[in-house]
Amino acid sequence: MTYCLAITLDAGLVLTSDSRTNAGIDQVSTYSKMTRFETHADRCLVLLSAGNLATTQFVVEQIHRDIHESQARNLNTLSYLSDTADYIGEILSSRIRRYSENEASGFAPEATLLLAGQIQGGPPQAYMIYPQGNHITSSKETPYLQIGESKYGKPVLDRFIRPDTSLLDAATCSLISMDSTMQSNVSVGPPIEVLMYKKDSYDISTHYRFGVEHPYLIELRKAWGDKLRQAFTEMPRFSEQ
Amino acid sequence: MTYCLAITLDAGLVLTSDSRTNAGIDQVSTYSKMTRFETHADRCLVLLSAGNLATTQFVVEQIHRDIHESQARNLNTLSYLSDTADYIGEILSSRIRRYSENEASGFAPEATLLLAGQIQGGPPQAYMIYPQGNHITSSKETPYLQIGESKYGKPVLDRFIRPDTSLLDAATCSLISMDSTMQSNVSVGPPIEVLMYKKDSYDISTHYRFGVEHPYLIELRKAWGDKLRQAFTEMPRFSEQ
Repeated sequence: MTYCLAITLDAGLVLTSDSRTNAGIDQVSTYSKMTRFETHADRCLVLLSAGNLATTQFVVEQIHRDIHESQARNLNTLSYLSDTADYIGEILSSRIRRYSENEASGFAPEATLLLAGQIQGGPPQAYMIYPQGNHITSSKETPYLQIGESKYGKPVLDRFIRPDTSLLDAATCSLISMDSTMQSNVSVGPPIEVLMYKKDSYDISTHYRFGVEHPYLIELRKAWGDKLRQAFTEMPRFSEQ
Repeated sequence: MTYCLAITLDAGLVLTSDSRTNAGIDQVSTYSKMTRFETHADRCLVLLSAGNLATTQFVVEQIHRDIHESQARNLNTLSYLSDTADYIGEILSSRIRRYSENEASGFAPEATLLLAGQIQGGPPQAYMIYPQGNHITSSKETPYLQIGESKYGKPVLDRFIRPDTSLLDAATCSLISMDSTMQSNVSVGPPIEVLMYKKDSYDISTHYRFGVEHPYLIELRKAWGDKLRQAFTEMPRFSEQ
């Protein structure tokens, strides 16, 4: 399983992903699910992936090839983020179709992607690309998109993420959301990657990687757990009044 | 959708359920999902249900009939809670099979149940009964069972519920878990029912029903939200150190 998150803020983007991959319950590996593409200076594009690893690796490889082989349609030639999502969606859905036809019992080639970034002339945005190739973007009311094991970590996002939240606060919140998910589902695990993108900077180098023993991750987990426990002891006592 | 929860503690049981039922997105109704059975004084039995309403209504009706028609095997004649879960599982799975055969596209007769209670000679226990009729019980490490929309409300249970948690604290925690779920999924909704059962009392009358405007529910939601917001502002600031 996987948990990836893209938060779209007035100030820019915060992208967060775990790194645990499993084929069955006993074949667990570590793969980064965050790909930063090297593109022209007028754009920056990042892909987060959940689902079948063979499918998502193919998509990333194909995107790279299209750039190097100077295909008419590639990450550098498209003028809008939504067109870029269309383009990636086509690669994704056609690859899935190829394997769906001879689908063995239990085998699922499906994958879901988050495309995030900015192309000059437009705002920073994120798109969730479905296995069918279509996509949605976030809104002011719901300024984040999630793929993979999304439910455990959603309540904390609903409480704290607003369009005017700062990049740093959103990054902290995304780590709390990730930590809640890891505590409830062992198939989501570190290292955790966090990328902060400042609007109009076209710079995706502010990227952090937190291993399982990272002091900040441990400190944050302990602080959040302690505060929640304290909060719980201060709740109004159960009453039928 | 539905969210039901059975917590098994040293002190007894806490059972919590919502009341929202939907057939499709636009046919939403209110049904209690908690059934307290009138049985002999040496036992107390409560059923929580999630899934197809026609299926769960049939199961409850059949259990009542078996008692009144004095079938050899009914809630009053079985000596163990696990046998009772077997018995209910058979009613459940045979009813589901009947409709699975002519299954229309998108139609799902499946349902999942939580049986909780105590039969003299045994401890208070809870069983989750699957659509196939088999069942699991809780453990010291995971002293609760959930059915329906279980993920949003799980992190708070993982943090606070231990076997030695008091009935009142567990009831408060179950309402916070329910509230987190309602905030993230509109298909789970009030009234919320809570039943507290004290070990060896064989009394299931300590039952509460919280409507959407119930002062305690509002107070608890506000207090929890305020404390979480305060906790979030006090978190160690995001850092790569």
